[in-house]
Amino acid sequence: MAVGREPSGALPLTLLAEQFARLPGIGMKTAQRLAYFVMSYTDEEAEAFANAIIHARKTVHACSVCQNLTDLDVCPICSDERRDRSTICVVEGPKDVTAFERTKEYNGVYHVLHGLISPIDGITPDKLRITELLKRIQAGGVREVIMATNPTPEGEATAMYVSKLLKPLGIKVTRLAFGLPIGAILEYADEVTLYKALENRNEI
Amino acid sequence: MAVGREPSGALPLTLLAEQFARLPGIGMKTAQRLAYFVMSYTDEEAEAFANAIIHARKTVHACSVCQNLTDLDVCPICSDERRDRSTICVVEGPKDVTAFERTKEYNGVYHVLHGLISPIDGITPDKLRITELLKRIQAGGVREVIMATNPTPEGEATAMYVSKLLKPLGIKVTRLAFGLPIGAILEYADEVTLYKALENRNEI
Repeated sequence: MAVGREPSGALPLTLLAEQFARLPGIGMKTAQRLAYFVMSYTDEEAEAFANAIIHARKTVHACSVCQNLTDLDVCPICSDERRDRSTICVVEGPKDVTAFERTKEYNGVYHVLHGLISPIDGITPDKLRITELLKRIQAGGVREVIMATNPTPEGEATAMYVSKLLKPLGIKVTRLAFGLPIGAILEYADEVTLYKALENRNEI
Repeated sequence: MAVGREPSGALPLTLLAEQFARLPGIGMKTAQRLAYFVMSYTDEEAEAFANAIIHARKTVHACSVCQNLTDLDVCPICSDERRDRSTICVVEGPKDVTAFERTKEYNGVYHVLHGLISPIDGITPDKLRITELLKRIQAGGVREVIMATNPTPEGEATAMYVSKLLKPLGIKVTRLAFGLPIGAILEYADEVTLYKALENRNEI
């Protein structure tokens, strides 16, 4: 009988689990569970999964206009003639575009920065797609830029930085409203949110 | 300008997200996040991920002895001459083998059923690897079989079913002990666990 190999290192299941564990929010235990689950796939299903990874990675790139991820040269939103191109909503990442699109209320276009300024993580402004945004504005036709980054220190810093670059160009720069989320219970709201809700109160 | 394709259906990123969403415990929102994350991979990293899926699926199969998943004909545990082959620990799935191996206290071998009897889900005893277990025992040399299925209705039913098949063969059949988990706080224990802990109390 062959001497057993130790159950570690180069085992195909372990390698697959390690690949899953690289993904954000997936620990080693969940990764193993996922790897075992894939073992229940047919060969065709496993091929489809593997091909989806390769295909997405190979064909998806940044839209040449808004920098959102797409498999086309210009993404469906930028090439949609019904969208109002005079309004650009500046967001951190592609997920934020999806979030705004879900509201079905925004008809402008987007600009995806692919990150937020965070010197502590080595993310300086030149690492973001800010130059591309300036070029779009210099090309003309833009009336308003909405800074729609998260209400976090990095999001605020990025919004401030970009708006300082844009204001000299005579562009109206706005920021998302912050206040109580709909359905919130006032007594559980944190102090900053409550202060923002008070500061930005509207006449009714 | 080309008329934009609607952002749905056949987009590579959506296809990849759908693949992630098939995995257990991963909803569509998490799946999208994972798909976006994979877009930050280099081509080589994406290939490595895809290959890990294909490779694991192609090479991993049930051990011809214990039915645990392995890429060898006989898994490392079954082929390890230092393991006590007179004791077989019967478990639901490969994850349970990993759990027991982590304790570093069990030196016997395993038998993986690949499921639990659950007629409501269409899982009848013939769908499990019970015949393979009986064959191992008929081949001789087995002294004890430990039923190590979960303390759930399905786990109990499976343990009962298998033990009824084994007892006529003159095999000692045991069941895992159930009681308070180590570190538990008594007042938060559920009634059944507490009852089991009382019922199975030991002299000190």
